[in-house]
Amino acid sequence: MTLSEIEKALVSFLPEKDEYIKTVVSAMEYSLTAGGKRIRPMLTLQFAKLCGGSEECALPFACAVEMIHTYSLIHDDLPCMDDDDLRRGKPTNHKVFGEAAAVLAGDALLTLAFETVLSEKAAALNGFAKCAEAGRVLASCAGAEGMIGGQIIDIESENEARSISLERLRVMDEKKTGALIKAACLMGCISAGADETQKNAAARYAECIGLAFQIVDDMLDVTSDEATLGKPIGSDSANNKSTYVSLLGLDECKKLASRLTDEAISSLSVFSNGAEDLTALALSLRDRNQ
Amino acid sequence: MTLSEIEKALVSFLPEKDEYIKTVVSAMEYSLTAGGKRIRPMLTLQFAKLCGGSEECALPFACAVEMIHTYSLIHDDLPCMDDDDLRRGKPTNHKVFGEAAAVLAGDALLTLAFETVLSEKAAALNGFAKCAEAGRVLASCAGAEGMIGGQIIDIESENEARSISLERLRVMDEKKTGALIKAACLMGCISAGADETQKNAAARYAECIGLAFQIVDDMLDVTSDEATLGKPIGSDSANNKSTYVSLLGLDECKKLASRLTDEAISSLSVFSNGAEDLTALALSLRDRNQ
Repeated sequence: MTLSEIEKALVSFLPEKDEYIKTVVSAMEYSLTAGGKRIRPMLTLQFAKLCGGSEECALPFACAVEMIHTYSLIHDDLPCMDDDDLRRGKPTNHKVFGEAAAVLAGDALLTLAFETVLSEKAAALNGFAKCAEAGRVLASCAGAEGMIGGQIIDIESENEARSISLERLRVMDEKKTGALIKAACLMGCISAGADETQKNAAARYAECIGLAFQIVDDMLDVTSDEATLGKPIGSDSANNKSTYVSLLGLDECKKLASRLTDEAISSLSVFSNGAEDLTALALSLRDRNQ
Repeated sequence: MTLSEIEKALVSFLPEKDEYIKTVVSAMEYSLTAGGKRIRPMLTLQFAKLCGGSEECALPFACAVEMIHTYSLIHDDLPCMDDDDLRRGKPTNHKVFGEAAAVLAGDALLTLAFETVLSEKAAALNGFAKCAEAGRVLASCAGAEGMIGGQIIDIESENEARSISLERLRVMDEKKTGALIKAACLMGCISAGADETQKNAAARYAECIGLAFQIVDDMLDVTSDEATLGKPIGSDSANNKSTYVSLLGLDECKKLASRLTDEAISSLSVFSNGAEDLTALALSLRDRNQ
């Protein structure tokens, strides 16, 4: 499935913009269509195919994960959180729609994610049991024990203004970015009716690429330039933020990212064939320059 | 089921406060245990019983509705929304935990609501199909077309600083408070495996008591005193806010609240018996003084 097909599907789940709610729906749409690599929905679709399912059945689950990711960016950018004015070169949601509407648009996307997983369309394609399981996995990975837990660690680490330990950094990233990547992979497996061995392999793949992704992010903040990266570089060090690079050094980071990528790829060996795309994805995340 | 049993169940769904996430879980717990009439979970349990189901099976659904209600209060009180320092006589969530943690605690309660509806416990008691249907109804009533839609109308009405029409006020309240009350009633019916006639009656009951509730709220802001009401009176008029009282007058409001309460009660006639508690609840909401 192409990027534009995913984006068309995402928009198709938005409510109609009637005279009463057009502001909040426009704010939801603004961030949902603001681009991005769409890695998470891609993972859902790829794992569905790999486990013998179909992209069509997994599509509502894929869209739901991207809705959760999008809401988390809107709330992250708020003045009381990271206070960012720009996201992917465009004004952030609250800069365009105001803070109140941005809070509500985030809340509404979070809610819409579950409405989508449990929609009649999703149920007709997957059955109730798979929809309920997918929704439970999504909630558990996106909630206080998952993504939101990672956010609170991040906020508290900034407030403490002291060096974060490697262990705390790892737990933070595992929750903040890893958990939702895991949900994306698992929901693809669930749609396809995968067995436990396949789900465990998908979870391991997700853990490895999630952590490698974050390590590469930290490396790019040091080694890239603003034009290539599309955002200011050196911000971590300027903010005295502990990163994998500040804690381990560039060389060790490079080795670790490679090792994790290798492990992600080797976890795919339980699938007899068809894992080329997920192998390529893991490599491209390691070798990206933005 | 008693109030304290509901409150015990609510807390039982919270994640453990480990060293990493204790702040956000404490913030969730603070608002979840801050009291309140627990009308919504009561409605879920009552309709479950009325439709031949059990309170035990409906309890996870009842808790989920209250989690959604609680998150909406936390986000409503934020500086960028209503900017309230007190709620039920206690400091609001962001006053205690800070704005960032309050945003995240709200997000986490919203997410936990769906985790609860789709939990293994809920599925064991109700089956996947009912859990999926209950989650879908909850999402649809809490999202952009429901509760959040009501919030955006409210915010935009304040910004416009002009008198709101009766029609717009009605739509706002129907979404802002009515939709979640409807979800509460319907999820009780769903747990019990109610038929369409029963669900329609529950929806009508919810619409009527939801609107009556708001009309009585507006009346109390004029007729009560601060000591009885537990919050400042006359704030609507001081803020030039259009209310049912300002648009219709006190007498007409009183008649309308009675008429709606009568209609709520008569909608219960499709149930052969056992509707005494819901009749009493409708009357108590009409006759309350706080």
